[in-house]
Amino acid sequence: MQHNWQDLAKIVADKLEAEPIKGEPKELYEPIVYTLSMGGKRIRPVLVLMAAELFGQASESSLSIAKAVEIFHNFTLVHDDIMDEAPIRRGKQTVHEKWNRDIAILSGDVMFVKAYQELCLTKPEHLVRLLSLFNQTAIEVCEGQQMDMNFEQEEELELADYLHMIKLKTAVLLAASLKLGAISADADTVQADLLYDFGLNLGLAFQIQDDYLDAFADPDQFGKKVGGDIVANKKTYLFLAALESGDETGKVALKKAMQIEEEPAKIKEVKALFESLGAKQKAKEAIKHYSDKAMNALAQIERPEETKKPLQELAAFLMQRGV
Amino acid sequence: MQHNWQDLAKIVADKLEAEPIKGEPKELYEPIVYTLSMGGKRIRPVLVLMAAELFGQASESSLSIAKAVEIFHNFTLVHDDIMDEAPIRRGKQTVHEKWNRDIAILSGDVMFVKAYQELCLTKPEHLVRLLSLFNQTAIEVCEGQQMDMNFEQEEELELADYLHMIKLKTAVLLAASLKLGAISADADTVQADLLYDFGLNLGLAFQIQDDYLDAFADPDQFGKKVGGDIVANKKTYLFLAALESGDETGKVALKKAMQIEEEPAKIKEVKALFESLGAKQKAKEAIKHYSDKAMNALAQIERPEETKKPLQELAAFLMQRGV
Repeated sequence: MQHNWQDLAKIVADKLEAEPIKGEPKELYEPIVYTLSMGGKRIRPVLVLMAAELFGQASESSLSIAKAVEIFHNFTLVHDDIMDEAPIRRGKQTVHEKWNRDIAILSGDVMFVKAYQELCLTKPEHLVRLLSLFNQTAIEVCEGQQMDMNFEQEEELELADYLHMIKLKTAVLLAASLKLGAISADADTVQADLLYDFGLNLGLAFQIQDDYLDAFADPDQFGKKVGGDIVANKKTYLFLAALESGDETGKVALKKAMQIEEEPAKIKEVKALFESLGAKQKAKEAIKHYSDKAMNALAQIERPEETKKPLQELAAFLMQRGV
Repeated sequence: MQHNWQDLAKIVADKLEAEPIKGEPKELYEPIVYTLSMGGKRIRPVLVLMAAELFGQASESSLSIAKAVEIFHNFTLVHDDIMDEAPIRRGKQTVHEKWNRDIAILSGDVMFVKAYQELCLTKPEHLVRLLSLFNQTAIEVCEGQQMDMNFEQEEELELADYLHMIKLKTAVLLAASLKLGAISADADTVQADLLYDFGLNLGLAFQIQDDYLDAFADPDQFGKKVGGDIVANKKTYLFLAALESGDETGKVALKKAMQIEEEPAKIKEVKALFESLGAKQKAKEAIKHYSDKAMNALAQIERPEETKKPLQELAAFLMQRGV
């Protein structure tokens, strides 16, 4: 029996609530409970469970893995928020703001161990495969965060570097969540790898779409202010694609437009350049390219078509936000 | 064939040097190579190998565990140094000083994963036991660090809390190193636990001795300045034992002496109070108490007496620094 996304998110939320991470000293554990109860879409643990249900069923092992990836993801957010000096996450104070830097470092470290403890609750015969993928993914996520920080300082950045960064920072954990779930349901390596590819390409498509929507979303449908990345001078897919258009005059115009002080004028001018330099079109094509690759990988998986429905629905939900 | 401490330290150093932790981006990996090549006594990995040799031999698995605990220990130092705002470690700049805070957080996180990767190279049949102990120990070390930070803010601290803190912050990792090594050499649980007790009590004895020597070492033999803890108003075993002596006049005198501005006068006065309030004697007794407990645990281990020699020599070396 397969569940849809909402059902699985509820199962994850219930598990997290039923098994709060407690201990002493309280300075270390209160931030963990706080962080894990903040909510969020629980997309990674849902992917674990969906993958398990694609190949059989979500066992207690699958649930432990789901919890582990959610704890791990939240650990990275706690540490990233220190580095980004972010005051707010999901509408609430970040841990380093609400407590302090040292507590955020150390309670993050404890969360990381707790993720491993959850992973170790899985069936022993899966443990080596699961840990090997989890370790590799954890390292890649850290590398992605470091690349992201480096990029802020870099003058000449290439689109290929940007794609590599979003792959490491975001896509590999989505991919790994799926593969870990597949392993927990005894999927063979070929099938588990196809699911990994599905997640990886979906993650890339989603991240490029995120950049696209920030500039070109319908303001009525978009949750946040359109043009936020432009105002913040962020090196997005659109910005880098525009710089790589080969149009030297356009490149100069774009760099000049980024200096405009008045926000609406800046957004309007930069968006016009994204369009005239072909970056908007290129982003659209890239989103389609990676989405297609994702759906192709899913199509190749040797499971009955109807069992793929929850993953197809989730992908459709993530990728149909008005591009 | 058993090795002495120096031989084993060389084996560890050679392994660390032969397998440097490399990767991209370099901002993430250079601090790791830097930290691991700083040296230090390599006492934890040596304990892993000694434990393995006590029960059989140090296998490739034992060596991986040795490397894992050394990487883990260094990870905790990198993060602790941020929290303590320490500029220097082992005579060299700390990672957050030489690079920056964010790199210290993130390269620390990567080191933590690398420790797990090393652990996962051990024999699969040992993995669950090894990881279970390692996870538990990692959490305890974090708890100890948080307690240590809390203590700086606390007015009324009890000796029992202090002992609990040094147990978590220092002793459990020494104990776990020994037990992990024992597991890698197929020691049974009872024997491995006795070795854990040996390490735990030796760690407590060593840490109390550290406090003792800071005040009462022979200046000619002591590597650093005598009285450093007193000048820094540190809440050491001696200080807390003096406060718990039950002598209210003495307690007031001690708190007053801690306010003296002139360093030599402050050290002289505080040391005199440590002596008159019985704290010096109490520390000596505690060191003997925990040392004896350690040696008793070692004596109970069912291995030929001559095989215990390296551990006895290491304990003697650690504990004979002029108390």
